[in-house]
Parts: sequence; structure tokens; C-alpha cells
Amino acid sequence: MTSKNTIKVAAIQQAFHGSKAATLEHTANQIRQAAEQGAELITLQELHATEYFCQVEDAKYFDLAEPLEGETCQLMKALAAELNIVIVASIFEKRGHGVYHNTALVLDKQQGLAGFFRKMHIPDDPGFYEKYYFIPGDNEPGFSPIETSIGKLGVLVCWDQWYPEAARLMALKGADVLIYPTAIGWDKDDTNDEQARQLDAWQTVQRGHSIANNLPVISINRVGLEDDPSGQTAGIDFWGNSFITGHQGEWLAKANSDEETILIAELDLNKSDKVRRIWPYFRDRRIDAYDNLLKRWID
Amino acid sequence: MTSKNTIKVAAIQQAFHGSKAATLEHTANQIRQAAEQGAELITLQELHATEYFCQVEDAKYFDLAEPLEGETCQLMKALAAELNIVIVASIFEKRGHGVYHNTALVLDKQQGLAGFFRKMHIPDDPGFYEKYYFIPGDNEPGFSPIETSIGKLGVLVCWDQWYPEAARLMALKGADVLIYPTAIGWDKDDTNDEQARQLDAWQTVQRGHSIANNLPVISINRVGLEDDPSGQTAGIDFWGNSFITGHQGEWLAKANSDEETILIAELDLNKSDKVRRIWPYFRDRRIDAYDNLLKRWID
Repeated sequence: MTSKNTIKVAAIQQAFHGSKAATLEHTANQIRQAAEQGAELITLQELHATEYFCQVEDAKYFDLAEPLEGETCQLMKALAAELNIVIVASIFEKRGHGVYHNTALVLDKQQGLAGFFRKMHIPDDPGFYEKYYFIPGDNEPGFSPIETSIGKLGVLVCWDQWYPEAARLMALKGADVLIYPTAIGWDKDDTNDEQARQLDAWQTVQRGHSIANNLPVISINRVGLEDDPSGQTAGIDFWGNSFITGHQGEWLAKANSDEETILIAELDLNKSDKVRRIWPYFRDRRIDAYDNLLKRWID
Repeated sequence: MTSKNTIKVAAIQQAFHGSKAATLEHTANQIRQAAEQGAELITLQELHATEYFCQVEDAKYFDLAEPLEGETCQLMKALAAELNIVIVASIFEKRGHGVYHNTALVLDKQQGLAGFFRKMHIPDDPGFYEKYYFIPGDNEPGFSPIETSIGKLGVLVCWDQWYPEAARLMALKGADVLIYPTAIGWDKDDTNDEQARQLDAWQTVQRGHSIANNLPVISINRVGLEDDPSGQTAGIDFWGNSFITGHQGEWLAKANSDEETILIAELDLNKSDKVRRIWPYFRDRRIDAYDNLLKRWID
């Protein structure tokens, strides 16, 4: 059996602090606090440096984008090296003129930029106009975990979290943990019942990936009400509830819906081998009968 | 938008009643009761006619098998016609000498035997020696929902419930509901904490399929302690907890862990169209990047 590799992990649930500079400064402080508490892997929410600008389609917001190894990358790289940690960050990436992505970065204490993941599934629905801003990640390398000094991180982004395919592909490539930087919230016009169903569904589908793949999950969401710049809606009430599960989907830590939080848990990143001996789903996959998963619909 | 097709569905959670004859008689009574309550779709647990014989590997248990259209099929077909309902049953199928399956049957009030599903993923772990008894279902037709007079039923069996692939394939072929006849229970030697984690994982992973596919789920499990014929263990304490969810994975009905129950809920089998407009996961699947799902492991 593989040896234990128990580490402290942190999920930093934050609000937007009015500007990119102020928000990044705040985040850097939160990272320092998490590191002081012993966290060796620190994870941030989706597009953590800015407001969630996808509530409207407006070309001016492309100004918020930065190159892969731009300002946010440099700041996080320096913090990872200084604090001897691994950081999962998230940026609005400008890859080229007219080529933008929603990209997660992994900064390693030893390697610097260890890898990145460009959001593969891009949502688009009222208040979340992401198809206007982000090109989906290329199918190569696609769903590939990122090797770091503490383990292989299966980093996916937000909408990817609704797709069992994404989690499974990360697991099949040897991910030790699934990590979902996220920006999801309530439409204030929905009923309380509908809001409760949505939050529960969001938690449950991700816990399902944890269970089906015998892997821990870290999901990091923002908090706070952000106005709709168009004034057409009451804005988005980001619902927080960042959480960390163990290898059987069991709750290890969970934040509430409206406060900034540094969520901490201990994870043994080598434990999946042990759990998979008891729940050997990988042994019995019917890869001879899965061809239709590559179809849009089976007519 | 498609029209409403709201029907009453029932899940019958039962114990083993000492013999196949006594158990089938009891089940027929339960089905009549559920039909009196207005159920139009009645679902039964895995291998409901007999004890869960897979606790040991013993060739004598092959005597319990019956042909596809054998005794259980005939009984259920007659009940479906008489009561004007659709029944999902489960048998130990003898397909040929030395060729046995764990098979779910769908009996339609109009069509008779509308279709069957041979369990595709076969478990094997201490107390659940199914690989000794059951050949996995053929890859064709594999994961295909069964057309009935009330809708397309995505019938899978027990261990299939841990596989997101199976649920997705049923959804891609137009299933209106996912149905899991099941036989799962606790090992009395596990701690209370581990028992709680297992039950929660079992519920959560299936609710995850409900959410990821915008489909209701009906999961039917047995209750009661069944002895280990070998005397080597304390037997299996089947944990019941049969349940029905709606299209967002929300609880509609849930049984407890130790009582026979007729669980009833109302389901609109056309509702997935409505839910998929709000949560359009099928729109954004990255079928160009899923090839590796057909691999055992990505080395």
C-alpha cells in the first residue's frame, strides 16, 4: 500500500474588494494567514482577482484579462516560493488578441508555474454570459491533472463541476484530488425552495464525483452580492458554501453562504489506493460498452 | 415544451420471506396495494424473489435461476395486465447452460415483456461474490432504456449505480427516469461511522446522477438481516433507504433502514426538457475531448 501523504489544505472563500489591486492584496493576506495555520495547498475561487464580470456582455471587460504568466501568476508564484506552499489560482487569461480563456494556474513552491487548466465546459445563461468571453480549453491536453511537489492536482473550473466525464478523466490520469474554483450564486428572483434545491444540487453532484472516483474534492466559491451593471436584474448573490470532502464524499469542512472564510482540512493524498481496494469501481468499468459517451445524443 | 406526463410511481422495499414462493406471493400483494394507491409504475428490488444468495459461492444456488420469460416474468406480466400498470422486476436469469445473468425485466400493461436489462457492471467483494454467478450484460444493446406505454425507463442494476457512465448513456438514449433495483447492506463488523459514510455515499452518488442528467431516480433496496450460509461472517444487514428523487436530485420520498415500505411519489416524466433549458449540461459536453473515457487507465 502506498505511504501516507497527509497534508493540510485550505480553501479561501472571498468577496470582491472593489478593485483588482485591492482584491489581490486581500487575497495575499488570506494566503499568508492560511499558511500560518499550516496549509500546504491553498486554493482560490474562480476569477478571484476581479468581480464576476460575466453578468453582462461588454467589450470593456476584456481589459481585465492578463497573460498566463502575468500579474496574478507572478504574485502567486512569489507567495508559493516564500511560504513554501502550492497555490491554485484562477485568471481571466489573454492568450492572444481575441483569444481569451478562463484559466486555473498551479504555482508550486519548487517548480513555479507547475501547470494550468483552461476551463473546458463554458456555460452561458442569463447573468452568466461566459461564452462571450471565454474560448473553451483545447481538447489537448484537455483534462490533465497537474503534477506538483505534493501530488497530482485535478484542477477543473466551475461549470466543469457538473460533468461526471471531467472528474472521471482526471481520475483516470491519476489525479489525487479534484479542485473546483467556482463562481456560482443565486438569482434573487428565484423562490427560496428553488435556491435551496440549486445549492444542494451543486454540493451533491460534486460529492458524487468524490464518491465515484474515490477522491477528495475541494470546491471554492465566492461570497457577496455583486450588482448587475446593466441594472436589469438584482445581481448575483454568490452563495459561498465552499467545501472539502474526503475520499468517500464525506464532509470534512464547509463554509457558510455569506462570510469570507479560510476553510482548512487534512487530506491524505495517497488514500485513494486504500479506498479503491474496498470500492473497486475502476476494476469493473465497461470500456467495451462506453463508445456512445462520445456522441452528442444517441438518435 | 413537451406536455406534462405526471404519474404515480412506487418503490417496494421488502425483506426475503423464507422461500421463493412465499416471497413472490408477498410481493404480488404489495404490488396490488401499491396499485390501489394509484401507482402506475411499480419497481422492485434486485433479485426480489429470493434471498441474496451471493454471500457465498455455492453451485447449488444456480437452481434458483429461471429463464427470461420464466415464472417471475409470467407472474409480473399477468399483474401488469390485470392492474393496468408497468412493473420493473429483477431475476436471476438462466440464459443457457452455464450462462447466467442478473437481469431486470420491464412488464408493460399493454406490451407484456417490454424489454430487459442485464446488469453490466458486476461487483465482487467479500459477501458479494457476484462474479461467480453472473456474466456481465453484452455490450450490445448494453445501456439502453426500455420503451413502455408510460415512458422510456433507464433501468440499471445495483453496482451499475456507482458508474456515472451508465447513467449518462441511458440519458443520452433518451431515458425519462433512472431506476436502480438494488441489494446493498452493511457489514456488521464495520464501525457506525463507516456504515453511515457508506449509506450516505450510496444515496449521494445516485442523486448525483439525477442532477447531472436532469432525471428522476428511483432506487429500490431490500431490508432485513440475511445470514451468511458459511457462518464466516455475521451476514448482511440490508440497509433499505429506498428513495425517489426529482429532476434536480431533490428528495421526493425515502424509506427507513429496517421496515418493509411501499414508497410513492409523483413524477412528471416529461420534465427533463424543462429542467435542461435552465441547466443545459447536454449543450456543452466536450465530446471532442472525452476519448480517454474508453481507456482502462491513462498510463
